[in-house]
Amino acid sequence: MKIVIIGGVAAGAKAAAKSRRLLPDAEINLYTDDTHVSYSACGIPYYIEGNFEDYRTLLVRSPEEFAKSNIFIHLQSHVSKILPQCKKVLVENLQSGEAHLVDYDKLIVATGAVPFVPDIKNVNLHNVFTVRRLEDAIAIREKIPSSKNAVIVGGGYIGIEMLEALVRQNLHVTLIERGPKIMSIFDEDMSDLIAGQLASINNGEFEIITSDSVVEFTGDNNGVNGVITSNGRRIDADMAIVCSGVKPNVKIAEDAGIKLGITGAIEVTPQMETNIQDIYACGDCVEEFNIISGKPMWLPLGANANKEGRTAAMNACGFPDTFEGVLGSAVTRCLGLTMSTTGLTEKDAIKAGFDPVCARVTKYDKVGYMPDANNITIKVIADRKTGRLLGAQGVGAGDADKRINTFATALLAKLTVKEFVNNDLTYAPPFSPTIDPLLNAAQILLSKIEQGS
Amino acid sequence: MKIVIIGGVAAGAKAAAKSRRLLPDAEINLYTDDTHVSYSACGIPYYIEGNFEDYRTLLVRSPEEFAKSNIFIHLQSHVSKILPQCKKVLVENLQSGEAHLVDYDKLIVATGAVPFVPDIKNVNLHNVFTVRRLEDAIAIREKIPSSKNAVIVGGGYIGIEMLEALVRQNLHVTLIERGPKIMSIFDEDMSDLIAGQLASINNGEFEIITSDSVVEFTGDNNGVNGVITSNGRRIDADMAIVCSGVKPNVKIAEDAGIKLGITGAIEVTPQMETNIQDIYACGDCVEEFNIISGKPMWLPLGANANKEGRTAAMNACGFPDTFEGVLGSAVTRCLGLTMSTTGLTEKDAIKAGFDPVCARVTKYDKVGYMPDANNITIKVIADRKTGRLLGAQGVGAGDADKRINTFATALLAKLTVKEFVNNDLTYAPPFSPTIDPLLNAAQILLSKIEQGS
Repeated sequence: MKIVIIGGVAAGAKAAAKSRRLLPDAEINLYTDDTHVSYSACGIPYYIEGNFEDYRTLLVRSPEEFAKSNIFIHLQSHVSKILPQCKKVLVENLQSGEAHLVDYDKLIVATGAVPFVPDIKNVNLHNVFTVRRLEDAIAIREKIPSSKNAVIVGGGYIGIEMLEALVRQNLHVTLIERGPKIMSIFDEDMSDLIAGQLASINNGEFEIITSDSVVEFTGDNNGVNGVITSNGRRIDADMAIVCSGVKPNVKIAEDAGIKLGITGAIEVTPQMETNIQDIYACGDCVEEFNIISGKPMWLPLGANANKEGRTAAMNACGFPDTFEGVLGSAVTRCLGLTMSTTGLTEKDAIKAGFDPVCARVTKYDKVGYMPDANNITIKVIADRKTGRLLGAQGVGAGDADKRINTFATALLAKLTVKEFVNNDLTYAPPFSPTIDPLLNAAQILLSKIEQGS
Repeated sequence: MKIVIIGGVAAGAKAAAKSRRLLPDAEINLYTDDTHVSYSACGIPYYIEGNFEDYRTLLVRSPEEFAKSNIFIHLQSHVSKILPQCKKVLVENLQSGEAHLVDYDKLIVATGAVPFVPDIKNVNLHNVFTVRRLEDAIAIREKIPSSKNAVIVGGGYIGIEMLEALVRQNLHVTLIERGPKIMSIFDEDMSDLIAGQLASINNGEFEIITSDSVVEFTGDNNGVNGVITSNGRRIDADMAIVCSGVKPNVKIAEDAGIKLGITGAIEVTPQMETNIQDIYACGDCVEEFNIISGKPMWLPLGANANKEGRTAAMNACGFPDTFEGVLGSAVTRCLGLTMSTTGLTEKDAIKAGFDPVCARVTKYDKVGYMPDANNITIKVIADRKTGRLLGAQGVGAGDADKRINTFATALLAKLTVKEFVNNDLTYAPPFSPTIDPLLNAAQILLSKIEQGS
């Protein structure tokens, strides 16, 4: 049995390790054009921030460890073609330039995502970075000691995480978001709250600019020295990081006739099968089924990649398994502010054809007399007709993360708000108010639905 | 409409406030033999610990605030008899000794619980405290500055919380638990873990003694100066706190013919009705329905009391409402160690007739490279035959609290372990590992069940 895996970050590495455990005698080859394999990409901002010194801390499993379990890792080896008819892949060595064909019985495509880089003048100047691979992280961190000012292009998850990282490294940071709001993954009211809370903790270390965009990077052979925005602002920068989102890396899959879904990522069954026999796909290159909307969505997140890699390996190795889909749970942090979400936002609920009712509360995360009590804002959303819970968002300096997981579980179980308000959550003053903000919000939501407001 | 409420801490105060909102014209009288009303009893340990200076911080609503909304609070007014035939209660003023009869249309009994005080020689010595009422808290806190050594009798929730409080106040504390384990509400393996973790952070500030008990308090007219244990140990003590548990305060209810349940607390319907027409009961004096076991249990906790007070008031005022029962969720903290539980423990699951399978993992609460990562141990329990989740316990220096709420929601929804492992929990390195310890434990549990081990 010859298993070939393309891609080696979360999903690919997981699929390789899982396949080995399932089939001790299979021949397992993993090809990646990256210079590293099996690392925590989600940990890159925390490395840049300086939480630890050695980038190797991010390595989950080294090539040597893979070798010990007889998994062959081929770094800087680009698979440029999949040949489903003869069940081969064409591998090009990025260092030597040589190419050869490799046979597979089962192929697992885990090519991930690549940064979307907008068409900005001089975007290829030295010290203009994207942040996706470990080598990007190493390069950014190396540039920090000789930098004073940084520009971040884009105010989504990665932009916000890089803002924290660079501010903590004592750089002055200007974040420029093209749209009217940062963190527009959230509903507008919650995005506004995020912007307001970040403004309130800003002691001049950073500036967030919205409704403006970088039209040009300025600089010379030494690298970038500033940006010009569409509103004509000139901002000094010793380094710039383009965080304008990612797109699924699906070119070779598409070329081979592997079907893409409406999101542009690879369409897979719950068994992580593509439309082509013996080819599986997993991780950031595939689209997910959203359990709440019943529709496909593309949610390139590490936890999903991990689970999908596992399911792809199981089915490739002949052990039936399914990945049931996602709720859309995600969390991040910026300078002490937690932002988390699960299920559908209000705007996405409308798009998905629901008639959403919302409730939002701002409360202490624990009893107010505890010295470390902090505010959190919880927004909960349900369908007006059925009362079914649809989603929740949490924002605040307090504990706004695990409460969203409590809600995610209610979504998984398809609970109505009436069922959820009976929840029996732990209570003690250091952990929550007598009535948890989550239940508080749910009670308001229930009244709204019952009163038909 | 005359509403009379007996008891004024959590359930009684909540019932009074809720009744007022529902019926603006009702006559509402609340009688309590306490010197304070509407305070956070759960917050007492944190006041004693010194998190805030003024005990009035614990007051949720003052008698003056109640008066403003036309609710009459009668402090130090002991209801010594309920007369259901003529719908009156006998009230004795504890200061003046006078007594009078009060009419009711609806009576809400919220008499709470009282400390169980074991029959120990000299237990009535000065500076031997129990900790239930605000006046206890004030007395204990007043004694702290002149104390060096304290003895705590009992190693349950309150004992453990008082241990933290007094250690933080720089007293040397000896906690003496009669049974073989502290925190025996948890399964034995988790109790052992708690004991081990507390031992590992002990720098000589405290000693925990198990399988021994206090047989005598020594001292004189100035108060206690030590204890003698059944093993013959003599321990110095300037103060002692008896935390040997509580019992439901149901004498006047029982005398009036109100039916008690098998737990010894008042039996109520989901509407919080007792067996006697127009008499409701709520809070620590009533027993709860356990949603998992389907059996009654007595769980005197603040969050339940609050919800029950609300439901009792609604039904008393003619607005149908039900309290669906409890999962048994609880949490506490001791010197940085979090201990939380929901649903049934393994031992309780066996008692309730299930055939429990368990899985236990010890993992970091966030990705290990984050500087504030800490270990947590999660134990999850399911029924072997059906795979239905039964309970979870969390212990550790890390975030072991809200994860138990995530599990509680799964219990509320009656999920099986197979359904639960599909959960989509938020992931980012500052918040959790790629696979949350809770899902990790659930996956192991699922394998055990599927492999029939």
